[in-house]
Amino acid sequence: MSTTVASVQFEPVFGAVDSNIERMEKLTREASAKGAKLVVFPELCTSGYMFSSRSEAYAYAQPANGETYRIIQELCSQLGVYVVYGFPERSEDNALYNSAALVGPTGLLGVYRKNHLWNEEALYFEPGDKGFPVVNTEIGKLSMLICYDGWFPESFRECALGGADIICMPTNWVPIPGQREGEQAMATILAMSNAHENGLFVIAADRVGVEREQPFIGQSVIVDHTGWLLSGPASDQHEQILYADIDSGTARRQRCWNNFNTPLRDRRPDQYSRSVSRPI
Amino acid sequence: MSTTVASVQFEPVFGAVDSNIERMEKLTREASAKGAKLVVFPELCTSGYMFSSRSEAYAYAQPANGETYRIIQELCSQLGVYVVYGFPERSEDNALYNSAALVGPTGLLGVYRKNHLWNEEALYFEPGDKGFPVVNTEIGKLSMLICYDGWFPESFRECALGGADIICMPTNWVPIPGQREGEQAMATILAMSNAHENGLFVIAADRVGVEREQPFIGQSVIVDHTGWLLSGPASDQHEQILYADIDSGTARRQRCWNNFNTPLRDRRPDQYSRSVSRPI
Repeated sequence: MSTTVASVQFEPVFGAVDSNIERMEKLTREASAKGAKLVVFPELCTSGYMFSSRSEAYAYAQPANGETYRIIQELCSQLGVYVVYGFPERSEDNALYNSAALVGPTGLLGVYRKNHLWNEEALYFEPGDKGFPVVNTEIGKLSMLICYDGWFPESFRECALGGADIICMPTNWVPIPGQREGEQAMATILAMSNAHENGLFVIAADRVGVEREQPFIGQSVIVDHTGWLLSGPASDQHEQILYADIDSGTARRQRCWNNFNTPLRDRRPDQYSRSVSRPI
Repeated sequence: MSTTVASVQFEPVFGAVDSNIERMEKLTREASAKGAKLVVFPELCTSGYMFSSRSEAYAYAQPANGETYRIIQELCSQLGVYVVYGFPERSEDNALYNSAALVGPTGLLGVYRKNHLWNEEALYFEPGDKGFPVVNTEIGKLSMLICYDGWFPESFRECALGGADIICMPTNWVPIPGQREGEQAMATILAMSNAHENGLFVIAADRVGVEREQPFIGQSVIVDHTGWLLSGPASDQHEQILYADIDSGTARRQRCWNNFNTPLRDRRPDQYSRSVSRPI
């Protein structure tokens, strides 16, 4: 039984939390009307990304079960859909995290705190402290990763070893060193290879536009468990919703490749002596 | 100071060890004449790949410092080059390994035993037991990986965390599940993403041809430390030598991306709780 999933590439307006959430609501209704059961939004899409001070980030942050959650949850309940979105999270003890929430018809199902912070995020946010949660849902086991997490194959492995079938990846991809003009974005090549290596789906929802002089590259993708693109790359300039039909059963069925090889089980931790220690 | 490196895609003849080595000698001379200082050959290129019994594999296997080594070493000494080649290794206690040797002008510099065995290799070979060696040379720190190792990001990470600048990857890539007609081979996409994630060069030398009904896909590549192709993919049918000029200093200089991020140092082992244990 396949499920329709959607990656919503859109352009949040910095600081306009109320209208960003109104737009998310409208886009979720649009995706749901096309049959989507799981809808993924970009990183920090409620607030925008380019904070200039911690107090500014603090002002836009909310608890994971705060006002934004309540609005999105009511929508999920009404439409019978699952929504993943990135938001600045304020913890009970006032720490800030660059987080993603998985909300379903019945409530808040999971929160992921970005483990690998990019650039000046380190000025405002704390690095994640809750590992890589895997959440059971009716459509399979879901995990979340955020943007720069995608540069670390360890991120995908942690999710896969926890049994994840689908990675929901809110992102705010920026231009990176070495990217070649006219070639597929390296960010999406990483999503493909990690999907392939782990036999799971990746739904990457990026933003577009320029915010406080920082350009974002769009090119959202939905990747098959074989590593090939099911949908996208989306435009590098415009808002766009990508759709694909996926089946977590197919991914699980095909994880055994022959009589000897099931790649996820062929790891050799006894020979991985260096990667268990921190190099600095 | 850049170094010219070569990936030699060729078609060994099964069981014809003497003539395979003669061809390797000729191809090394050709690459050296074009300025190559490091020459990489495919997996099991001295013997061929499709063994039908352990006794057959045993018959073609040699110690790492055996007759094949002596011929290649004399050549390296004469030409002042480094050669990496795949061969069936027979250990002192008669175990067989699918190995690669790094031979230089001064002798045997390193042996790598394939850690992730593919399909029926498990009938004839033991899985590697020596981790992922990193070898200091005048052109940088070199590691070796073999074919299916490339499906495990842990392989590249182990080399990178040991300081490797260049991964020499003898391979015998076969068609895999999910590969799409007319698209770049997933094997080479994995090489690109792992080069990018670790900021190191990958020289993948594949074979071509059909051996005992098993086709091989060619498409050898040399990948930059940014993840982009420097040379290749080579033909999927024909023998071919790829060349590229690489500089390990450039890779090291560019591993710091901004004031906050040096990807190799941004790992979060404290949050990688699942990948340190074996899932089966």
